[in-house]
Amino acid sequence: MPQSVLTPQAENFPQWYQDVVTKAELADNGPVRGTMVIRPYGYAIWERMQRELDDRIKAAGARNAYFPLFIPESYFTREAEHVEGFSPEMAVVTHAGGKELDEPAVVRPTSETIIDVFLAKWVQSHRDLPLAINQWANVVRWELRPRLFLRTTEFLWQEGHTAHASQDDARRYALRILREVYEDFAVNVLGIPVVVGLKTEQERFAGADATYTIEGMMGDGKALQMGTSHELGQNFAKVFGIQFQDEAGRNEFAWQTSWGVSTRLVGALIMAHGDDSGLRLPPRLAPVQAVVLLVRDEGGAGEQAAAIVGDLGDAGVRVELDTRVGTSFGRRAVDWELKGVPVRVEVGPRDLAQGLVTLVRRDTNSKEQVGRDGLGRRVASLLEHVQANVYGEALDRREARTADADSIAEAVDAAQAGFARVPWDMAREAEAKLNESGVSVRCLQRSDGGLPGSSADPDLVATVAKAY
Amino acid sequence: MPQSVLTPQAENFPQWYQDVVTKAELADNGPVRGTMVIRPYGYAIWERMQRELDDRIKAAGARNAYFPLFIPESYFTREAEHVEGFSPEMAVVTHAGGKELDEPAVVRPTSETIIDVFLAKWVQSHRDLPLAINQWANVVRWELRPRLFLRTTEFLWQEGHTAHASQDDARRYALRILREVYEDFAVNVLGIPVVVGLKTEQERFAGADATYTIEGMMGDGKALQMGTSHELGQNFAKVFGIQFQDEAGRNEFAWQTSWGVSTRLVGALIMAHGDDSGLRLPPRLAPVQAVVLLVRDEGGAGEQAAAIVGDLGDAGVRVELDTRVGTSFGRRAVDWELKGVPVRVEVGPRDLAQGLVTLVRRDTNSKEQVGRDGLGRRVASLLEHVQANVYGEALDRREARTADADSIAEAVDAAQAGFARVPWDMAREAEAKLNESGVSVRCLQRSDGGLPGSSADPDLVATVAKAY
Repeated sequence: MPQSVLTPQAENFPQWYQDVVTKAELADNGPVRGTMVIRPYGYAIWERMQRELDDRIKAAGARNAYFPLFIPESYFTREAEHVEGFSPEMAVVTHAGGKELDEPAVVRPTSETIIDVFLAKWVQSHRDLPLAINQWANVVRWELRPRLFLRTTEFLWQEGHTAHASQDDARRYALRILREVYEDFAVNVLGIPVVVGLKTEQERFAGADATYTIEGMMGDGKALQMGTSHELGQNFAKVFGIQFQDEAGRNEFAWQTSWGVSTRLVGALIMAHGDDSGLRLPPRLAPVQAVVLLVRDEGGAGEQAAAIVGDLGDAGVRVELDTRVGTSFGRRAVDWELKGVPVRVEVGPRDLAQGLVTLVRRDTNSKEQVGRDGLGRRVASLLEHVQANVYGEALDRREARTADADSIAEAVDAAQAGFARVPWDMAREAEAKLNESGVSVRCLQRSDGGLPGSSADPDLVATVAKAY
Repeated sequence: MPQSVLTPQAENFPQWYQDVVTKAELADNGPVRGTMVIRPYGYAIWERMQRELDDRIKAAGARNAYFPLFIPESYFTREAEHVEGFSPEMAVVTHAGGKELDEPAVVRPTSETIIDVFLAKWVQSHRDLPLAINQWANVVRWELRPRLFLRTTEFLWQEGHTAHASQDDARRYALRILREVYEDFAVNVLGIPVVVGLKTEQERFAGADATYTIEGMMGDGKALQMGTSHELGQNFAKVFGIQFQDEAGRNEFAWQTSWGVSTRLVGALIMAHGDDSGLRLPPRLAPVQAVVLLVRDEGGAGEQAAAIVGDLGDAGVRVELDTRVGTSFGRRAVDWELKGVPVRVEVGPRDLAQGLVTLVRRDTNSKEQVGRDGLGRRVASLLEHVQANVYGEALDRREARTADADSIAEAVDAAQAGFARVPWDMAREAEAKLNESGVSVRCLQRSDGGLPGSSADPDLVATVAKAY
């Protein structure tokens, strides 16, 4: 494998992305248009995301369940905005078991409709509320311009669906998920700073009253929507009959939320931190946090490398051993760089003769020779520094590339390189014009950075950017 | 909730099963025929199964990945036996994105064909082998007689797919998965003894050279196929072009295996251990191993109950606290019985005044008053006894209900109540006749209990039973 295996970012960022996905063996295109094969290394990254998100989702009181892949076509037509939003992307099963079906079955693009049919059965009294369900599943939305991880016909995600006794409680929960699950995960695990805000009416989820989002800035300055949390009001509850008896004995419709993140986050991870040598994984997320690289199996180096793997494992580090001495050292080092493993521990006979090993950080490429003793604690601590640094770099970039704009023309201009902040009062009427210029309103915030309740609130700031 | 909430097993076992699934809130029927909603408690059981199986699968060297749900119809026609076996059960997407597709897409019933297309790309040299991939996914097989968990149109499973350099290596791996993953999990986690054997040609997987199985006996004496591992020979490798260069530089076709277990195992768990009061979960599998039941919130009982939950958690017990004192104690106890939680810790003011709490075992229904101190260790130890006992009971039943038969008529007769063991030389020609009598050959073993290489081996014993 040659050193310059990837197209440089500065030359062609999309081609660089495609190269990383292929060469780091993250994913391949599937045979049916827009589908994706997630290869073992890519899937290990997704499994780490699942574990971290699942812990947070359970801590927020939601319980996992599983609803059918196939949804009767008629369910979708019940909520007018919802069907209008999703119809163009639906895949439909018309034949099964050798016969034509009486009613076509839609392959779920999202599960509000089918889950709500069951929430209507399970919710009777205010004592049944709040009820919070989460599902890890595959969904299908037919894509005309697919791109691995970012936009695929089938993708993996979690989707949360909840019912509450009051609008306030629903709103609090939608924001709790946004902050305690999605923002916390993005910032503290993925190491990606996010702009947290409200979507405009044009950009919100089909059928929702309000959509909140976290938006990350990628290496090329474009925005990526990384997760959304919706207030559904009573829209679906009225259509599907989710009613409860309140404390006074009156029948009321439930207030609902839904929220999700997907394998798109793997794309975010690649584009937020990657460089011309490949992935740079934040340690808290990395499936392999450190690789122990045996330089040559001489002078007891093989035994020492194995012992070091033991020490690192004992210190709680996810570690792998590379003893492929039949392959050149340089080639192996480049391969681990490509895969973004945060720390390399190089173990060779020359260093060892002096009681030393070499530590290499993937994020800074800095090397240091350190003593063999106490290596477990040392690497564990180094990983925390790497985590902080990749986050710091992403934050620096976002700050450097975010500009305040005083006109729509200025905003479009600034959005060519990053994020533009422009008064919503100015952008509201110009949203279509912004879109024609290839940029979009990513979200709205209050001028103090807080979350607005509605896009009609005064003094809001719109973040405008090109987006994936 | 009345005490006799379930139809007694002796009266109507299938109705008892359906009652448990409904009343313990494990699953519901979905709207599209044969589909299933897995409710939170049922899904928590499946998550525990996934965790235990996934650890074992990874320990056996397989790596998780994900392949597309949609498979081009033409892929299936390449392997003649395979398409013949699966065609009648396929669900087909003909329309997507508002248009008719050029080639219909099959919703995967199993993934050999699509995974093999990629194995053909990834495998080049003997150094790439063995290559072992596992996938956790949903699959669809159209069911005419659906039954929750046991036989559903859509189900969740893991499917392993491997490629090897030799027939021997493939065979060893198929058996390793069978023994170290499936049998070990069934016996040591689910607490279900299994008959491990070879399927007859009639019963084997469509496209395989050999199918190995683990078969459990349910509470009514019927057999349930709990997991299968297949030797695929070079059948798929030849069709999909999975070739490698061996050490001598010759091109050879790979030897393959595939293997899977599914949400059907939840059905096995219910039927192997359940009784007229509901589920009886083996502690190693149970999502909730112990419930601390607050009898009345008086005399400091509430604080003590919470403290006991802490102690049990510290002792590694998965524990839940029930403080719903507004609901009658009896009703809550019956509910936890129904849910099969292995141990109840009843905490009330009267016991506490003497420094005591009451422990109730779900498996034997025995109660004992024990001291408040050292409760964590005591419950952890009790759980091990419960685990051993539920396994022992299942083993006793299987032994009591397994008979040696000297004729086909005797075998059919014995199979009305359990398993019949009959010489394969006698059953071979009578397999169709056995099927007409409502029983089937579940698997073949050597007379010493070992696994045969082929159904043509001499002196094999057939286990014959009614089956789910």
